[in-house]
Amino acid sequence: MLLRMSSLFLRTLRDDPADAEVPSHKLLVRAGYVRRVAPGVYSWLPLGKRVLENVTRVVREEMDRMGGQEVLFPALLPREYYEATGRWTEYGDTLFRLKDRKGADYLLGPTHEEMFTDMVKGEYSSYKDYPVTLYQIQTKYRDEARPRAGILRGREFVMKDSYSFDLDDEGLKRSYERHREAYIATFDRLGITYKICFATSGAMGGSASEEFLAPAETGEDTFVACHACGYAANAEAVVTPAPAAEDAGAADRPAMRVLDTPGTPTIESLVEYVNTHHGLGITAAQTLKNIVVKVTVPGSGKTETLIVGVPGDREIDFKRLEASLAPGEPAIFEAEDFARHPGLVRGYIGPQVLKDLGIRYLVDPRVVDGTAWVTGANEPGRHAADVVAGRDFTADGTIEAAEVREGDACPVCGSGLSIDRGIEIGHIFQLGRKYADAARLDALGPDGKPIRITTGSYGIGVSRAVAVLVEQRHDELGLLWPREIAPADVHVVGTGKDGQVEAAVKIAEELQGRGLRVLVDDRAGVSPGVKFKDAELLGMPTILIVGRGLTQGVVELRDRATGVKEEIPLTEAVDRVVAACQE
Amino acid sequence: MLLRMSSLFLRTLRDDPADAEVPSHKLLVRAGYVRRVAPGVYSWLPLGKRVLENVTRVVREEMDRMGGQEVLFPALLPREYYEATGRWTEYGDTLFRLKDRKGADYLLGPTHEEMFTDMVKGEYSSYKDYPVTLYQIQTKYRDEARPRAGILRGREFVMKDSYSFDLDDEGLKRSYERHREAYIATFDRLGITYKICFATSGAMGGSASEEFLAPAETGEDTFVACHACGYAANAEAVVTPAPAAEDAGAADRPAMRVLDTPGTPTIESLVEYVNTHHGLGITAAQTLKNIVVKVTVPGSGKTETLIVGVPGDREIDFKRLEASLAPGEPAIFEAEDFARHPGLVRGYIGPQVLKDLGIRYLVDPRVVDGTAWVTGANEPGRHAADVVAGRDFTADGTIEAAEVREGDACPVCGSGLSIDRGIEIGHIFQLGRKYADAARLDALGPDGKPIRITTGSYGIGVSRAVAVLVEQRHDELGLLWPREIAPADVHVVGTGKDGQVEAAVKIAEELQGRGLRVLVDDRAGVSPGVKFKDAELLGMPTILIVGRGLTQGVVELRDRATGVKEEIPLTEAVDRVVAACQE
Repeated sequence: MLLRMSSLFLRTLRDDPADAEVPSHKLLVRAGYVRRVAPGVYSWLPLGKRVLENVTRVVREEMDRMGGQEVLFPALLPREYYEATGRWTEYGDTLFRLKDRKGADYLLGPTHEEMFTDMVKGEYSSYKDYPVTLYQIQTKYRDEARPRAGILRGREFVMKDSYSFDLDDEGLKRSYERHREAYIATFDRLGITYKICFATSGAMGGSASEEFLAPAETGEDTFVACHACGYAANAEAVVTPAPAAEDAGAADRPAMRVLDTPGTPTIESLVEYVNTHHGLGITAAQTLKNIVVKVTVPGSGKTETLIVGVPGDREIDFKRLEASLAPGEPAIFEAEDFARHPGLVRGYIGPQVLKDLGIRYLVDPRVVDGTAWVTGANEPGRHAADVVAGRDFTADGTIEAAEVREGDACPVCGSGLSIDRGIEIGHIFQLGRKYADAARLDALGPDGKPIRITTGSYGIGVSRAVAVLVEQRHDELGLLWPREIAPADVHVVGTGKDGQVEAAVKIAEELQGRGLRVLVDDRAGVSPGVKFKDAELLGMPTILIVGRGLTQGVVELRDRATGVKEEIPLTEAVDRVVAACQE
Repeated sequence: MLLRMSSLFLRTLRDDPADAEVPSHKLLVRAGYVRRVAPGVYSWLPLGKRVLENVTRVVREEMDRMGGQEVLFPALLPREYYEATGRWTEYGDTLFRLKDRKGADYLLGPTHEEMFTDMVKGEYSSYKDYPVTLYQIQTKYRDEARPRAGILRGREFVMKDSYSFDLDDEGLKRSYERHREAYIATFDRLGITYKICFATSGAMGGSASEEFLAPAETGEDTFVACHACGYAANAEAVVTPAPAAEDAGAADRPAMRVLDTPGTPTIESLVEYVNTHHGLGITAAQTLKNIVVKVTVPGSGKTETLIVGVPGDREIDFKRLEASLAPGEPAIFEAEDFARHPGLVRGYIGPQVLKDLGIRYLVDPRVVDGTAWVTGANEPGRHAADVVAGRDFTADGTIEAAEVREGDACPVCGSGLSIDRGIEIGHIFQLGRKYADAARLDALGPDGKPIRITTGSYGIGVSRAVAVLVEQRHDELGLLWPREIAPADVHVVGTGKDGQVEAAVKIAEELQGRGLRVLVDDRAGVSPGVKFKDAELLGMPTILIVGRGLTQGVVELRDRATGVKEEIPLTEAVDRVVAACQE
């Protein structure tokens, strides 16, 4: 079908939508690709639908190529499957829940681990059946607290999710590796720039996992990269190198002592005070800051009090803290919580008393045995110095909760890390046996004994990839689609009143006959300027202008991305456009 | 990709599922095409997904060909759009409703009239923009009271819904006609047998509408057809020809009289009693039966009492009654309702007193002025004879609520109607301005005055079509797919231990190289009998057996539908299969 601007259901907008902050949101709305229906819920107009379909096709082809088998699950799912794994509760407010007319509980699927596991259990029984990889491209629902940026972070969105089922850990690793390669092929074909980052597995459970992050200023994820050794990781997954522990009980170490430090509720004021009044000469990195949080205990409805100790020169990174505590969810410890814990002296907490108070204490990996700290003395206006880890207090474990900073040491090679922002476009997980355990998914082994299946879970944000393509590829004039994803290969613009529009349509038809996907601007009564602006905004990779030059037998070929323009003879127009589209 | 039975995620079942009653449900489950997740909620396995995709492709191509433009709406929709048209309430329990984390009301779209109307309003403003037809192929949700028959009547299902927007009634008629032609092309290509039936528009509002019904014993819809003139209509839409009215006040008519009729609560007992004891000589068709119902008044939360009068030889058809009263919903008038209306003498109700009681009374179209009836006398054990319509009572209007019977007069030509059962696979509506009025969808006319847009709504049950194909095309051995819809063109079966499986795979690869979609049974350790049974159950249109004959250079070509088998030389196998697939 020739796409004709005269009848295409499309109206471009001159102004950015009021609620849009990021380029993809602004441009996809202005160019008439998507429209908002509700917060985080969007419709796709004809050009947008084509782009979404093109991304879907690439994802499907690469999944088929790696041996995935496509199925399709419902989005409306009964509670029971998610109850069995605890996720009915763990998902919290992010899960859309509803009841049917009989009062039965349902949810709108945010991801389908439970369902795929159940499906495999229903069909397969013998070790000979395995391995298998299944996938679907389907609409998912998550009631995000902060839907934002148009289709970049929606509450209804399209995902490719796949799941591997293997007999053993080596099989899982192979399935994971095949997915990794398929994802590389997919994102390369889509024309998305990405970084493969170590990731935490969060609420998904499981062990090894990597994220495909598309670097973008507007990204919500922070990742580190080491340009020396190639290490890259989501900030939440960055492992802090721990210094070597020393002998905490060495006889020559000064004993802990308590100092008067009036009016020092902040680290900055504390350092200045002890250096000025007690002659310590320390930096903020030598102080130990203790932050109290309350953490939900999943499924119990209860919360636990937790104190996290980090060097005083670093802030707590709440996303890192959340990732470390998942599926538990941390929350701020409020004044009323302090009121219930009189042993905790706000602003002057030190770990020395936490064992006695029965409060769990986790520390930054830098707080190894033998390190000495200035920290709270658990009395108003007083701090303690020479508080030695392993001697004056013992933590219950370590936690990755401190912020990561530009220049921090790479955990692999020790070089300085860089920090950038990115958007998650893919995620691959070695889940292990969590979901197989919940569903009791076993294969009957060659010896007649059951083998517990091990699984992997792999996602690509299909609708999000459309937005990411725009974040990474646009200019001040509009969209810049890679050819495979563009709604059309070429945008033929007819302008003028001397038969240019008719000539443009004729060329468009010829181009279509040559196998190209063609959008032709055949609108009457629209100025050349508006047509050119629309062509730039809409972003087809090749533009052919059939304008004033037509009477001299000349048309203009433009490359949207480079902006290169060339006058070419009308007689060569079709061949030249075909050649440009095959580059 | 070559589909190999050795790795295909497929396990066929020997027995019908316990909950299955209709052939499509039994066979699609047994053949491993679909699996149940919840009542009316199904998953598609790899072969089923391919069939669904093929049906989708045909529907899309025909919609594109007729000029429809594809868009995609979310399923999760905010209440406000459906509140504006009253459907938030009118849909009753059929609507899945839910709240988001902020407590805002949402629904899962059962159909998208409101959304499309709003979308067009957002983009278009001038009369020059129109007409336009938009469509989507998308997942819909309806909380059916009685989900049944697998994917035939699901609660989550795939639909193609399209909407036309025109400036005037003539335009709407053209859009409607183009859809009608596109539907004929679509169902013809899908290989579905259908009848185009006049239909009521039910809760959709609007005027002209037709249903595409696929004749099937298991269908939930009843339709009539006239073999003389070609008239066909859904039973709910059948118009009862009314006899000519007579002079109700003619002086020679006997006066109404009350008869003692003890113990005559049924029509049968009444007729026998009055003929035996009062010498009337009437048939049941001359009695007037009055049925009390209560009807919801949409949006008010209230119900109204209504009495429906029909000739005593006919039952009330509750579906016809519902269609006539929509969007009001009728319910049984219970004993407690009678208790609140002492004027209504159960079993002996006559219309003579209804005006005084202030109860609305609607009659069958046969009850025209001047007809005389035996009916209740509003006293226990008594009936009235010679009760003349227009003289002794006046109805508030007519209603199509009486059952339609085989042999009833065709409303067009008067011949006898036949009655059959069918499944609704498509529905086309001339909605008119109901939704445009609610959304105030106007185009600015050439004279600067607004023109209210008129709309049509058109649906195809995409997932249902898969089930309908099975209802209409199967045998005792299994499925019988038309080639365009089949998961593969040909099923190559390798059986034997003398290299047959390897030969089968080689042929399959060659066939694939020739452009066919191929399923090959390359399973080791599976008996020929099981492989043949599976091939018949799975239903690819062409089957090639590479078996014992291979050592003599012979293979067997089978046509699944006709059962015709032919031994052919191995050397000709590929060409012969290609030829068979091109027939």
